[in-house]
Order: sequence, then structure tokens, then C-alpha cells
Amino acid sequence: MARRFTLAEIENFLNSADLKTELKGDGECSITGLQSLIDAGAGELSFLSDKSFAKYLEDCRASAVILQPAMADRFHGNKLITANPYAAYARVSALFDPLPKAAAGIHPSAVVAETAEVDPSASIGPAAVIGDQAVIGASTSIAAGCFVGDRSVIGANSNIAANVSIYHDVVIGDRATIHSNSVIGADGFGFANDQGRWIKIHQLGGVTIGDDVEIGACSTVDRGALGDTVLENGVIIDNHVQIAHNVRVGENTAMAAFVGISGSTRIGKNCTFAGQAGVVGHIDICDGVHITGRTVVSKSITEPGSYSSGTRISKTSLWRKNAARFNQLEEMAQRLKTLEKKLGGPK
Amino acid sequence: MARRFTLAEIENFLNSADLKTELKGDGECSITGLQSLIDAGAGELSFLSDKSFAKYLEDCRASAVILQPAMADRFHGNKLITANPYAAYARVSALFDPLPKAAAGIHPSAVVAETAEVDPSASIGPAAVIGDQAVIGASTSIAAGCFVGDRSVIGANSNIAANVSIYHDVVIGDRATIHSNSVIGADGFGFANDQGRWIKIHQLGGVTIGDDVEIGACSTVDRGALGDTVLENGVIIDNHVQIAHNVRVGENTAMAAFVGISGSTRIGKNCTFAGQAGVVGHIDICDGVHITGRTVVSKSITEPGSYSSGTRISKTSLWRKNAARFNQLEEMAQRLKTLEKKLGGPK
Amino acid sequence: MARRFTLAEIENFLNSADLKTELKGDGECSITGLQSLIDAGAGELSFLSDKSFAKYLEDCRASAVILQPAMADRFHGNKLITANPYAAYARVSALFDPLPKAAAGIHPSAVVAETAEVDPSASIGPAAVIGDQAVIGASTSIAAGCFVGDRSVIGANSNIAANVSIYHDVVIGDRATIHSNSVIGADGFGFANDQGRWIKIHQLGGVTIGDDVEIGACSTVDRGALGDTVLENGVIIDNHVQIAHNVRVGENTAMAAFVGISGSTRIGKNCTFAGQAGVVGHIDICDGVHITGRTVVSKSITEPGSYSSGTRISKTSLWRKNAARFNQLEEMAQRLKTLEKKLGGPK
Repeated sequence: MARRFTLAEIENFLNSADLKTELKGDGECSITGLQSLIDAGAGELSFLSDKSFAKYLEDCRASAVILQPAMADRFHGNKLITANPYAAYARVSALFDPLPKAAAGIHPSAVVAETAEVDPSASIGPAAVIGDQAVIGASTSIAAGCFVGDRSVIGANSNIAANVSIYHDVVIGDRATIHSNSVIGADGFGFANDQGRWIKIHQLGGVTIGDDVEIGACSTVDRGALGDTVLENGVIIDNHVQIAHNVRVGENTAMAAFVGISGSTRIGKNCTFAGQAGVVGHIDICDGVHITGRTVVSKSITEPGSYSSGTRISKTSLWRKNAARFNQLEEMAQRLKTLEKKLGGPK
Repeated sequence: MARRFTLAEIENFLNSADLKTELKGDGECSITGLQSLIDAGAGELSFLSDKSFAKYLEDCRASAVILQPAMADRFHGNKLITANPYAAYARVSALFDPLPKAAAGIHPSAVVAETAEVDPSASIGPAAVIGDQAVIGASTSIAAGCFVGDRSVIGANSNIAANVSIYHDVVIGDRATIHSNSVIGADGFGFANDQGRWIKIHQLGGVTIGDDVEIGACSTVDRGALGDTVLENGVIIDNHVQIAHNVRVGENTAMAAFVGISGSTRIGKNCTFAGQAGVVGHIDICDGVHITGRTVVSKSITEPGSYSSGTRISKTSLWRKNAARFNQLEEMAQRLKTLEKKLGGPK
Repeated sequence: MARRFTLAEIENFLNSADLKTELKGDGECSITGLQSLIDAGAGELSFLSDKSFAKYLEDCRASAVILQPAMADRFHGNKLITANPYAAYARVSALFDPLPKAAAGIHPSAVVAETAEVDPSASIGPAAVIGDQAVIGASTSIAAGCFVGDRSVIGANSNIAANVSIYHDVVIGDRATIHSNSVIGADGFGFANDQGRWIKIHQLGGVTIGDDVEIGACSTVDRGALGDTVLENGVIIDNHVQIAHNVRVGENTAMAAFVGISGSTRIGKNCTFAGQAGVVGHIDICDGVHITGRTVVSKSITEPGSYSSGTRISKTSLWRKNAARFNQLEEMAQRLKTLEKKLGGPK
């Protein structure tokens, strides 16, 4: 049952994945798993991507290591030499994924509408529900307990894990991964206030998700109020992320856990949002922006680069004093100005 | 299949919903959808609620626009004139909601306890489970994969989306909407510490939710430890919100995504909590309080108004310096005082 | 149906639970529930753990009260005297838990793989799915709509609530509680960047969870990239918590709602994390650390104690000014230094 590849097979696999790789050593060496430099043992392939770990090469017991050309001489065993060892590790990891492959076909306990189109190579798991006119593409797996609403379309080779809820009028591309208990297409949070009471704004748009998108567990992408919420190709999203209605997220942008994007905000390509970052609504963030953990983005960003907010950790006893002073900052600034005047200016 | 109404029908609908509305133009004009001023085309109804968008009226191609009396002259086509165009848009949005209507009756794959009472007009979806002595009201829909525990009661005209989990002894009123994968009535987080080990405090209370409440996706409302957690009528809650045990939330209070309310806190009526705000336990917040995004409420609030905490975004390079200084604020304040003394007081 | 115990039975129960307890008063007194000092009435047992509530003892109408020896004289009715009344209350709460007991056996609508091992005393609820070679221990309940992946093992006397998703290769100990819609073993958020595109790092590890662990609703514990993510015995976790891949959480550590722990971080024993705290990846936190609400832990902590970050709430109008000054703190510090130089040093 264990997966097993020779080092030469792995070399070929990487070259075929456009990661130019050169093997040095025994191509017949048998690899049964991946492991870190420190923990690897016989039969395992390791990798060096962060140079600060180079010190572990000497005692590394891996059967082979993936390295950059500049580091090749530092390891004396079998090696795969390539420009981006971390990308090579990522590619090879697919060979050893223990994720069970779902069998093609519709489980007898699934409930599939007569008007739904399910590709014969697709897998619909136990107790899954597929709505009217929904379309499930080739080799796509809809796991146990998932709900796919009317008219929603999921492309080929996608993997929707157990208990995901996908509402009506959602379009998802090819090679999507959506982890368990996430929700795509729930209503955006739209209400008009009429003399203190909230009147629901029914959310008439849908959700459009491109190809090669990954969404973690317990995350939400709301449907649009008018027009769709959009995740472009290659977007990756961690657990507990909230994408509000009518947000647009550009290609290859990444968001870590608990990131929240408020309604109608547009985010560029190749941005990264670290954990617990938040973005207000109705703003634009340009391409190539990095938002550090827990930062609140309260206005549009027009220049690529790294942005932050928040304060640094300290002992609570000290923090209490400093936090109290924060609420006196305006007053302190005024007092500083007064002193400067008395002394004849800031210089 | 597309919904279609004449402008006169929409005028009547708004007047019957207590939004006094006057039609000017062609009452026979056929409306098939809603759209923003910028994107609207033939057959679409638009609205102007934010005056900064008035500039788009001139070139607007909507078949009709909802406007305030003061703005009526700015649009030359068909119009619906009313005091609160945003509320009118909200009301009309219900006419065009593409949400599929669930068929009345119990799906053969649902599991309904013999002692449960399900109204004949209610819909129980595939693989849904209804516990002993649970009650499901008229025209209420319990979608696929939902769980409703023993003795829980859900009122009429409510809409519980797929994969929602409702524990035992939960009461939910009429016209509730609960989005997918939310959880009502899980245990509050209560533990007593006994020499380093945690002893679970079983949560003996339930949850009581009033009428006209909306709860987003992946949100949680915990059951009470002793006595119930309560959401009063008209409360609206976004995705990823946490309401801890024994919290009470007053009428028409609104909470955006990731808001967390800690145990036993009482919140007044008509409050609003922007995204990622947090509230500590065992405090009181009066009516009419607005909490801005990401604010931590660490003490009771007795005066209506807007409250905030946190810092503003800047480039990370600058933020690093300022955040380091934050942890020196107490010291800076002391140094400022010393200087003032040397110079004969703060004035 | 109501549960009913004599005070003497409760005294015995506490002593058998290693909480030495002495009864004073009528051992035949019948107890049908628990309640706070203020709300308790006839038939109810109350407790005094926080001395500031001692003032309520005089008018308390409970049939009996649990108190510390030093407080025993303050209540004139029946009493249970013990060193830790809060722990005693926690123990007694188990006697009155209204949580319905699931019937042993596999529901006809559940889908259990032929190679799975389900103990005959275990309960598998409606529409639950148990994968190949999965093992479900004695008296464990897997509620409606749960998914348990291939090769996952759940110990004895555990309680997995409705719609929980447990992936493959997850090990969970005895006496676990996992609340609804939580997800154990979804992929960690690992991607390598190759010229702007993200390449998925398949997550080859699993999750190992010890005994006596509680996990709230809508929480996530990701599987490891290489090797397992680990929660040690006695860890308690609230709702909406994120434990990233390869994190290790030490015994009896507690985390409140919205806490997020980033990848590969190691956390000691007996730590507490208040709500919305966040921890960056690849750091170590020693035993006995307390992190206050909303704090960001951005570096390793080697000394037990309480740590904080963030700012304090104020009126928004004042906050705006102070927050603007925060972004000038470095400049203010420089100006302060200049003044000190002019005046001959800080002293």
C-alpha cells in the first residue's frame, strides 16, 4: 500500500513538471516518503530550502536530498539538484499524499436532482445533495454530506471535502480544493435600516471562482448583492477566512487564517495577507501588497509593499501602563509642542 | 423562469410594505431585475441612496430608478419616489431572490423522530435529522444535512440552510434565517480548574432566539451554563460570529463578521459591532452603541456613541519603529514630565 | 424525566470524584437542578466560588449551597462544604446535563465501511460516514452527519457532535468532546511559490489528539505537513479556534474563541489564551504562560507570566487623534530626545 518511487522516477517527474532537476547518485534508490533534514531516515527524501538548515546536512540520514546547485557539495549522499528545492518538495509531495481517492459514481445514499449533470467519472459521496441543473465536472469528488445548490457548476478534477455547503448559482473552476465545512454562496450581510429595524437586502448575485483555487476549512465566500463575488485563478485561502459580498480577489493572492475582507473591496494579484488581517469595504488594494498579521487595512493601497498596524507584545504589567498612555497620546503630543515652543522650536 | 413585475406592481408592493412611494412615468414598464446605477440596463430597476452617486443618474440606462423626492428631478426616466430608497431597494430585492423554494414535506432520506411535530407545510430536506419532541413551524425549511436536537422548537417561515447544527433545547422564533454550517446551542466554554486539570461545567441552559433574526454562515451561539443565551427580535449577525454562553443581545443589534461576545455580557438594543470587534465577558453595553472594526471592548459602556481601539495602518518599515516606541510610552511620558518640571510646568 | 438526587447522594458523588466534601443539614433534601445564588429556588443547589457574591447568601432561596469552609457560617440552610466549590459545581453539573444519550448501534442511514471497526456499544448517528479501517471505541457517539475518514481512530467514551468532519489518519483519545461543524485533519496551509504561482504542498502528516480533550464548534485542527499536529491530554479549545499544521499544544492548555496558532509553533502545558489571541509560526511558548485577549504573540516566550498587546478602548473621536499620533511615535521620541539634549540630559 505504501507508495514507492525510485529517485530516477522522481527526477523525471520534476523535469516533466517544468522544474529542471539533475540527479546525482543512485537513480535506483527507493523512496517511500518525505521528511525534514533532521527527522529523515532510510527510504526518505528530504530537501534544503532555508539555508539556515544547511548545518543539518552533514548528519542527515535521508536516502536523498533536494538542494540548490550552490549547496550540492554540502551533502554527500544521493541528491536532486534544482533551482527551487521548496517547489520541488511541493511537487513531490503530491506523489505521497495519503488522501483516499474517491470511487467514481454516485453513492446510493446521495440525492442528485434529475436535471443535474454529473460526469460519469465524478464521485458523489454518501448523503451528498446535488440540486437542479447543477453540473459536476469530470473526476471531481463531492464528499459525504456536501450540498450543491441549484444551477451551481463545479469544474473538473476538483475536490470538495465532507460537509461543504455550496449554495445556488455558484461557479467553481477546475482543480479546486475546498476543505470541510466551508460555505460558498451564503447571503452577503446586507440590510437597510428603516427607523431602527433591519430590512434584508436579498442577495441576487452569485459567486465565481476560477481555476486552481484552494479554500480551507470553515471558510466563507458570500454571494454578491448585485453581480458576483469573484476569486480569480490561483487564489489560495486558509481556514476561517471571510470573503464578503462583491469582493474581487486577484490571481494568486494568498490569505491566511481568520482574514476578513469586507464587501465590495477589490484586491490585486499576488498579494499576501497574514493571519487575522482585516480589510474594510469598498476600497482597492493594488497588486503585490503584503499585509502583516493582524493588520487592519482601513484605506485603499496604491503602492506595492508591506503594510502593518497593531502593537507589539510585552508583559501585561508593562502593557497596562503603555496602553493607558496610548489614550493620552494626543495630549502628550500637545505637551511636547508646548515644550518645543518654550525652547525655541524642535531643532 | 425569470421574475417580471411592472413598475406599478412594485409601487403597490412598496406601499403595502409601509414605504410610501410615488410612481412617476410608465407604470406598465416591465422590470426583470435590480442593478446599480452604473451597471443597470434595459429591464432593470436601480436606486440612489448615497448622494455621491447622483452623478451617475444622467447616463443611467436603468428602466427606472428609486430616488428621494429631493433627487427626483435629477433622473429623466421612470422613477419611484420614496423617503428611504435604500429600504425600498431592500424590500424590492425580495421579489427577485433566486433562492430556490423548498418543497413542503419530509424528504424520504430525512430522519424525523416519531415524537417530533413537523408542520405539513414545512420542508425537511435530504439527510436532515429532527430529534425527539422537536417542533418545526409552518412553511419553515430545514435544508439538507441539518441537525435539530431533542425538544428544540423552530417557528414559522424560517429558513435553516444546509448543514446547520441546532442542539437540544433551543428555541428559535418566526422568520429566522440561519446560514449554512452555523451551530446553535453547542456547549458554552465553561471549565473549573482543579489543581491544573480542567473539569467540564456541563451547560444546563439552552438558547432562545426571537423573531426576525438572521445568522450568517459558520457562526456559533452557545447554550447557557445556567439559564439561556438570548438573541432578541430583529438581531442580525454575519458570518464567523461567536456568541458565548449566557450573553443577551438586544433588539435590532447588528454584528459583522468575526465579532466575538464573551460569556454573560449583556448588550443593548440598536447597537452595531463592525468586523472583528471583541467584547469581554460579564459587562453591560447600553443601547445605541457603535463599536468600530477590530475594537476590543474591555469594560461596560453606559453612554451611547461610537467607541474604538487599535492602531492605524502604515508601511511596515515605519510601523516597526512606532510599535517599538509604543512599548516605551510610559517611559516617554515620564521623560516628558521631567522636562516640563525643568521648564516650570506644562503651560 | 427530571433528574433528582438527594444531597447525601451528591456528597457521596463529590467525595468519589476526589473532591473532599462535608454535608451539613438534611441529607434527604431533594435536588433537581443547579442555579446561581440569585436565581436559585426550591429544589435547586447553588454554589459560592467568587467571594464578591457572598452578599447574596443571606437571601438565597436555594435548597442547598456549596461553599468553602471559611464561608460555611454565612449560609444558614443545607450546605456542602468543600475546598473548591467551583470544581464541585462543575462535577455536579454532569449529573444534570440534558444532553440526550445516543442509543448504541449504527443507524440504518449511516454508511460504515466494511473494514471499519465500530465497538458494539458505540453509537453511529443518521447519515454519518465511517471510512475504511477507521476505529470507533466503546461508548463513543458519532452524531448525525459526521464524517470520519479512512484509518482514523477515536477512543472510548467520546462525543462527536453533529456535522463534524474528521479526515483520514487522525487519532483521537478517550473522553474527547468535539462540537458541531468542527474539522480535524484538513490540509495545513502549505504552498511553495514558483514564479508567482502557488504549488500545493500535500500534507502528509496526520493529527494526534490525547485524552480528555474538548474542542468547541466551528474549530479546526489541521493535519501536519510532515509528522503530526498534536494536542496533548486535557487541552480545552473553544469555538472558532485554528490550530495550524505541526503545532504542538501541551497538556491542560486552554484557548478561548478565535485563537489562532500558526504552523509548527510549540506551546507548553497549563497555558491560557484569551479570545482572539494570535500566535505566529515556528516559535516556542513555555509552560504556564497567560496571553490576554487579542494579543499577538510574535516571538518565543521563555518565562511564565502574563503577556499582552493592543490598545485600550476610548470614544472614537478621541481614538482618531491618538491613533494618528501612534503613527508619529518615532518622530515624537526623536523630538523628546532633542529637547532633553537642549536641557542637559533626561534627568
